[in-house]
Amino acid sequence: MISPPAQRPTALDAARLDAADPLAAHTAKFVRDGDVVSYLDGNSLGRPLADLPQRFDRFVRHDWGERLIRSWDEQWMERPFALGDRVGALVGAAPGQAFIGDSTTVLLYKLVRAAADAQAAAGRTEIVVDDDNFPTDRFVVEGVAAERGMTIRWIAADPAAGVALEQVREAVSERTALVLLSHVAYRSGFVADLAGITAVAHEAGALVLWDLCHSVGVIPVELDASGVDLAVGCTYKYLNGGPGSPAFGYVAARHHDALAQPIQGWMGAADVFAMGPRFEAAPDRRRFVSGTPPVLATVALEAMLELVEEVGMPALREKSIALTDFAEALLAEHVLPLEVGGRCAALASPPAGPHRGSHLTVTHPSFRAVNARLWQRGVVPDFRAPDGIRIGLSPLSTTFAEVELGIAALGEELRGQDRPAA
Amino acid sequence: MISPPAQRPTALDAARLDAADPLAAHTAKFVRDGDVVSYLDGNSLGRPLADLPQRFDRFVRHDWGERLIRSWDEQWMERPFALGDRVGALVGAAPGQAFIGDSTTVLLYKLVRAAADAQAAAGRTEIVVDDDNFPTDRFVVEGVAAERGMTIRWIAADPAAGVALEQVREAVSERTALVLLSHVAYRSGFVADLAGITAVAHEAGALVLWDLCHSVGVIPVELDASGVDLAVGCTYKYLNGGPGSPAFGYVAARHHDALAQPIQGWMGAADVFAMGPRFEAAPDRRRFVSGTPPVLATVALEAMLELVEEVGMPALREKSIALTDFAEALLAEHVLPLEVGGRCAALASPPAGPHRGSHLTVTHPSFRAVNARLWQRGVVPDFRAPDGIRIGLSPLSTTFAEVELGIAALGEELRGQDRPAA
Repeated sequence: MISPPAQRPTALDAARLDAADPLAAHTAKFVRDGDVVSYLDGNSLGRPLADLPQRFDRFVRHDWGERLIRSWDEQWMERPFALGDRVGALVGAAPGQAFIGDSTTVLLYKLVRAAADAQAAAGRTEIVVDDDNFPTDRFVVEGVAAERGMTIRWIAADPAAGVALEQVREAVSERTALVLLSHVAYRSGFVADLAGITAVAHEAGALVLWDLCHSVGVIPVELDASGVDLAVGCTYKYLNGGPGSPAFGYVAARHHDALAQPIQGWMGAADVFAMGPRFEAAPDRRRFVSGTPPVLATVALEAMLELVEEVGMPALREKSIALTDFAEALLAEHVLPLEVGGRCAALASPPAGPHRGSHLTVTHPSFRAVNARLWQRGVVPDFRAPDGIRIGLSPLSTTFAEVELGIAALGEELRGQDRPAA
Repeated sequence: MISPPAQRPTALDAARLDAADPLAAHTAKFVRDGDVVSYLDGNSLGRPLADLPQRFDRFVRHDWGERLIRSWDEQWMERPFALGDRVGALVGAAPGQAFIGDSTTVLLYKLVRAAADAQAAAGRTEIVVDDDNFPTDRFVVEGVAAERGMTIRWIAADPAAGVALEQVREAVSERTALVLLSHVAYRSGFVADLAGITAVAHEAGALVLWDLCHSVGVIPVELDASGVDLAVGCTYKYLNGGPGSPAFGYVAARHHDALAQPIQGWMGAADVFAMGPRFEAAPDRRRFVSGTPPVLATVALEAMLELVEEVGMPALREKSIALTDFAEALLAEHVLPLEVGGRCAALASPPAGPHRGSHLTVTHPSFRAVNARLWQRGVVPDFRAPDGIRIGLSPLSTTFAEVELGIAALGEELRGQDRPAA
């Protein structure tokens, strides 16, 4: 049985919202060719900027092709730090603390190890992490705990919300080495209380590592002001760096002396070109870098940083909220009223407000099949096992019109599951 | 005092050599704009192929821009392995054993740890490495030895040659966990006896990890046939993957069950999208991958692989030898006879033959200054402290004419050091 869609409220007028959107002009700066009519997965892989072919042309012909190896001296050696400072500025980090390089997983490993090793020396042997954190975060912690003989203290997260400050307060103790949490939960979009949790962990003497993958470039973060110790994040979601673009790391300046990471490479040595007989770590953030910086892989990231800096985080957050609120209202109109196979779809994300990030998850047992059908018609959210469709709202590239079109299609395809197969 | 250059032998005729070169036409397929008249550093950063702007255009507009997240299912998830197999084929690896990802340093760390941890469990606690190996190789081993309580057994390499088989035979024992060596020495260009050393290490029960950074794409290697256990290499030298393009790793299939690396990430899990509660490593080579594959960073590598596969390793090696022999003869004519500041320049590389790779190093106390002047006039070798100029001969992109021009300029600039500053 299917309930009919409710009467459309006048507020749900995508055309009016796009016309009034001060950032609307930016949506045309992205590649929008092809069959995709509604892209709702910018929180997994951001769209490319349309001027990237020209940027790659210049990079290949000039920076790489003409300057050749000289570009290392002229700009590339500093690139992980110059771009790191710019990404850092988006998350409240003063210069000198953030850097680009490696995958998110490898950077997590380095920084978890750095924190765990330093704290283990002080007799702290527990790592606190939640059971709904992104798999890589959990897997890295499992590996480090196993190899360093440490214990994991699991927090049971609410899948539709996240980790509450009180849960962290109960979990930390004089045994806690490190608390690792995601600022924005990858499924629900719940925004954790970054400053409050950091303070609670510090009261217990623990260090805190925040995963900012679903925050950077879309949610304001104040790493320095919140006293955060460590952070990592990726650059291919809201920073549109392209598939597999490198991650960024942050280590608060006060920890540069005391923390060391285990992957000792030539780029992290005090004197890179001395190539001396024994490793001596650089005194600054460069000690957290290992191998040759991934320069080619940061061309798209740099382009997006220019646009993000031009627009500014407050305006980005404002549009992100408007898109997310709009998506929620459309879900209420097109999807949540539907009863299919004896079950209604349910919103598995927090209500509007400071604890909601830039994506929403809706659940229904038939969503794996629904998602496959949506992709075939050019409506592209993503599916997260076992039963979630995730709707990502990337403020610079997403129009209200494509949100409306996409969620209407979601409702249609869910309704279609009620029909017997032909 | 300066000795005059010797009379030019007729064999040193660059124009004739270029005209007779069966691979000559390929040199025009690379970007050759700008002020560089002689590029002798393709062993550090290969030149870009001239068609890369079109390839990036297609990648940005189609693979990324139109297919968006769907490209992960359609091609990108398999890309580290599809490209890994192609790189593997260049070094004698059957499919299923090589993969792309991370930096060389990070891959070295993973595979040194994998070998060291497995062998330590069998009571083997020494790692054998030579004191002239590339700094990252040495630094990684230092770090792993320190954290795992292992001992490093240093082999004293001959800086102008390399590590001899007999030295390895003396170094290995029932205590040896791993032997880590470079196939081609980064300074001298000495080619180690890969098969012989591997066999000697195996007789002692040790595993062997070969660094192929200066081999892959230029020197034939037979990993499978030589019984090698592990290998790593980079793709921005003779595979022209661009600055900081990702590394490749090789783990012989017989070790996939027994070896585990410490950086447990979502891409190395048995079921990537299950996102289950606990990490279970993939049964195959994917267990050596950690984070999201660096797709964008492999566009240039793929282009070069097509060309390398078209030409084939035997023809590449043949031209590499011809270029290197030519460079040696030119050095004998233009550089080695010069006495400047009371010192003659000296060749710090092996003689022609199977133990010479695709670069030569010449040493002189004034070469730091000489190299700076060469770069100003568009002649680009590289300088390696304390006194070496390294001349890399990348067979697909280097003409005999630019080798002649570059080495003649080297002679002029060295002679110029004899004059008092103006």
